[in-house]
Amino acid sequence: MKAEIGVIGLGVMGKSLSRNLARNGFNIAIYNRHVDGIEENVARNCQRDYAELENAQPFDDLKDFVQSMSSPRKIILMVNAGPAVDAVLNDLGNLLESGDVIIDGGNSHFEDTNRRIDSMKIKGLDFIGSGISGGEEGALKGPSIMPSGEKEAYSKVKKYLESISAKDADGNPCCTYIGSNGSGHFVKMIHNGIEYADMQLLAECYSILKGQNLSNDEIADVFESWCSDLGSYLLGITVDILREKEGDEYVLDQILDKAGNKGTGSWATIAIANSGEPATMIPAALFARYLSFFKELRESAAKAFSTQHNTNEIEIRQVKEAYQFSRIVNHHQGFSIIKQVSNQNDWNINLSEIARIWTAGCIIKSDFMKELVHYLKANDSILLNDSLNQTIRKTHSSIQSLITACIKNEIHIPCFFAALDFFHGIKTFNSSANLIQAQRDYFGAHTYQRRDDPTGKAHHTEWTNI
Amino acid sequence: MKAEIGVIGLGVMGKSLSRNLARNGFNIAIYNRHVDGIEENVARNCQRDYAELENAQPFDDLKDFVQSMSSPRKIILMVNAGPAVDAVLNDLGNLLESGDVIIDGGNSHFEDTNRRIDSMKIKGLDFIGSGISGGEEGALKGPSIMPSGEKEAYSKVKKYLESISAKDADGNPCCTYIGSNGSGHFVKMIHNGIEYADMQLLAECYSILKGQNLSNDEIADVFESWCSDLGSYLLGITVDILREKEGDEYVLDQILDKAGNKGTGSWATIAIANSGEPATMIPAALFARYLSFFKELRESAAKAFSTQHNTNEIEIRQVKEAYQFSRIVNHHQGFSIIKQVSNQNDWNINLSEIARIWTAGCIIKSDFMKELVHYLKANDSILLNDSLNQTIRKTHSSIQSLITACIKNEIHIPCFFAALDFFHGIKTFNSSANLIQAQRDYFGAHTYQRRDDPTGKAHHTEWTNI
Repeated sequence: MKAEIGVIGLGVMGKSLSRNLARNGFNIAIYNRHVDGIEENVARNCQRDYAELENAQPFDDLKDFVQSMSSPRKIILMVNAGPAVDAVLNDLGNLLESGDVIIDGGNSHFEDTNRRIDSMKIKGLDFIGSGISGGEEGALKGPSIMPSGEKEAYSKVKKYLESISAKDADGNPCCTYIGSNGSGHFVKMIHNGIEYADMQLLAECYSILKGQNLSNDEIADVFESWCSDLGSYLLGITVDILREKEGDEYVLDQILDKAGNKGTGSWATIAIANSGEPATMIPAALFARYLSFFKELRESAAKAFSTQHNTNEIEIRQVKEAYQFSRIVNHHQGFSIIKQVSNQNDWNINLSEIARIWTAGCIIKSDFMKELVHYLKANDSILLNDSLNQTIRKTHSSIQSLITACIKNEIHIPCFFAALDFFHGIKTFNSSANLIQAQRDYFGAHTYQRRDDPTGKAHHTEWTNI
Repeated sequence: MKAEIGVIGLGVMGKSLSRNLARNGFNIAIYNRHVDGIEENVARNCQRDYAELENAQPFDDLKDFVQSMSSPRKIILMVNAGPAVDAVLNDLGNLLESGDVIIDGGNSHFEDTNRRIDSMKIKGLDFIGSGISGGEEGALKGPSIMPSGEKEAYSKVKKYLESISAKDADGNPCCTYIGSNGSGHFVKMIHNGIEYADMQLLAECYSILKGQNLSNDEIADVFESWCSDLGSYLLGITVDILREKEGDEYVLDQILDKAGNKGTGSWATIAIANSGEPATMIPAALFARYLSFFKELRESAAKAFSTQHNTNEIEIRQVKEAYQFSRIVNHHQGFSIIKQVSNQNDWNINLSEIARIWTAGCIIKSDFMKELVHYLKANDSILLNDSLNQTIRKTHSSIQSLITACIKNEIHIPCFFAALDFFHGIKTFNSSANLIQAQRDYFGAHTYQRRDDPTGKAHHTEWTNI
């Protein structure tokens, strides 16, 4: 019997997604290229390891794999983003037939996805770029899925993606058609950016609480107590992490403080720089990781400059409320950049639907995300939502106090500050940007607009001394 | 008599550079493409307008222009960065001969310059990408010039570029061979980034002092009083700008507070994101401009959230010392990103020489830059220099107090904070990045390094509940 859908690439994510498809009753083909040193083919090994894959058809020959599927073929790529995707597409291009659909489920750059949709189109093939979030566990049990491309192409694969996806509180699939081009991968990239910033906020909370001489278990207790009203996947795993021991030692204390990254935070920062949107928290989180990487310079500088610690004045309630405040701003910025780039590209993205498919299956799922589904139906601006407005007002003095204490105690808090400073900036009626415009006009004759000329005409002054 | 060097593009910068070349006694040809609506050719008009250009040979035919020059021809392009450069190169490619040299003096992206050097090489042509800073005044009287490409190619044009450049305090030209490829345009881009951050710092000082109810003239007095020990071109023009009036009104007060940008700040932010270097102040300045642009949202948010102003506690001395502190960090970050990208590309850039050619002619010239020439001879890290070390220690409490007051008064200060927080981060011996690594390993099996395993091996934990 022919397979109805196939998976290429059986790494951690591809394997888990294949098991998910099989568990949902689909007749699947699985393929991995031959790897030297493994006697049998990888796909067959994989099949043997997991009971769900009993009826899957395993291949290490791409042609056989393609021929095992009924038309139109549907193939999910789960290979590393970058040249590996183009290499597979190149091979597949000669084997597939008009009307077949390829879904790229990796973390590809959205501009690569734009390009691939066009180049596959020329060959008569449909290409769907799909962000998939949830890590290994999500891929296996139900991830959040963000597919984009041509809507008709999506209709051919909708059934499969919706079936394997996580389900929201109403039982609806956490999978929705995002828009044309690479919009799905764009949205996934911003998802990862929001994740970067939330992780960094929790790391800042951790360093503040550690500065209060709390043990890891005590910090875990604090975070656990927040779960009732600030519950989220990331908060939950942070509690687990803080409690994890090997023998008498906390695992966390043995982990080297140099943060890695796989590129999506950097891509998101670049997209923000290109968009004109002041989404400052994602870059702040990215640069915090970069800074951590300079461990030797940090050690030299720590010796060159002593640090005064004086942490008695920080209240745990303030840390919590500062986190609550910052999390709102983080989501405001994240959804604003999606809105901005959606407008620039005519993607027509439904922000409330994005929030909805992020309520389950993905790394940034949270109780707050469930609230956002409703708020974003009424208003695109999270900050100006009446209910969140009140929370912001209520928590504002806490984050002010917390940051003040951190400054005094010389604690690095880039994301907390980015949140507060964005808020102060966005509610500044008259900013100091008039001086920037004057300077640009002075040295570069770049001209400026005037307050008393609503036409927006370019004005220039012959400044003194030029 | 044949011209020895030619200029293409007679906009503000090209015209000024042509006059500079002529004033230095060079026999030049000038070219501008024909512009509809101008009866005579643009170059001839330009020649008539300026006495220095009396002996210049004006053209609006590119072939005649090329034939007017002796071999090897040397041509400076002063056209808008982007497609216009490629269009001119395309035309020139058919007219020039092997060994001729093209210098791109615009604000081109350094990656475009890399590409153009290679594509011109195929045609036997030498291509020099050269950053030129100083605005109109600099181009006319002597700019700071940052040429890069093949060293032998540079030797053909060295005489001209050095002659027209600004001169440092010792009379040496503010023009030096930067390195291979597009390194000159890269360095110019970071120059502009440092400029963005310094402008933003001055704008933040201005908004703080304005919050103290000082008039523009009083703020100018404050800035003027700083010139004796913190003198710089940007500080100087800011004094002029604050004093400038039309009738009884300050010009500055009529300028709309929406800052523009021409892309180099965004390019610099992208280069930083790509480099792994935590140079946070340039992005902070860029995003401050972006934020200012959302004037309507700012007005709505200002109405939704009231602001408490309570500025009595800010001392002017603290503002000055905070600026001094932040300017050191800005230059530390700027030179660090140059060093990092120079290492990544084997450009072997001499940081002290970069500081030297920035002591005159360019927008970021300052007394501080003169000090850096010496400091950077001894140590690549500005922050760890003994003398600057002392200044940082001396001014640290002022910036702490200032930011604390700004937080209380809800004043937007992204660059001040980026400076202070970078300092706190870089002197953190043990950071909270271990938590980030644990989270990444928890949800994505990304592994981590351990403190107790100096081999740097990748470790993984099977975390609770996964």
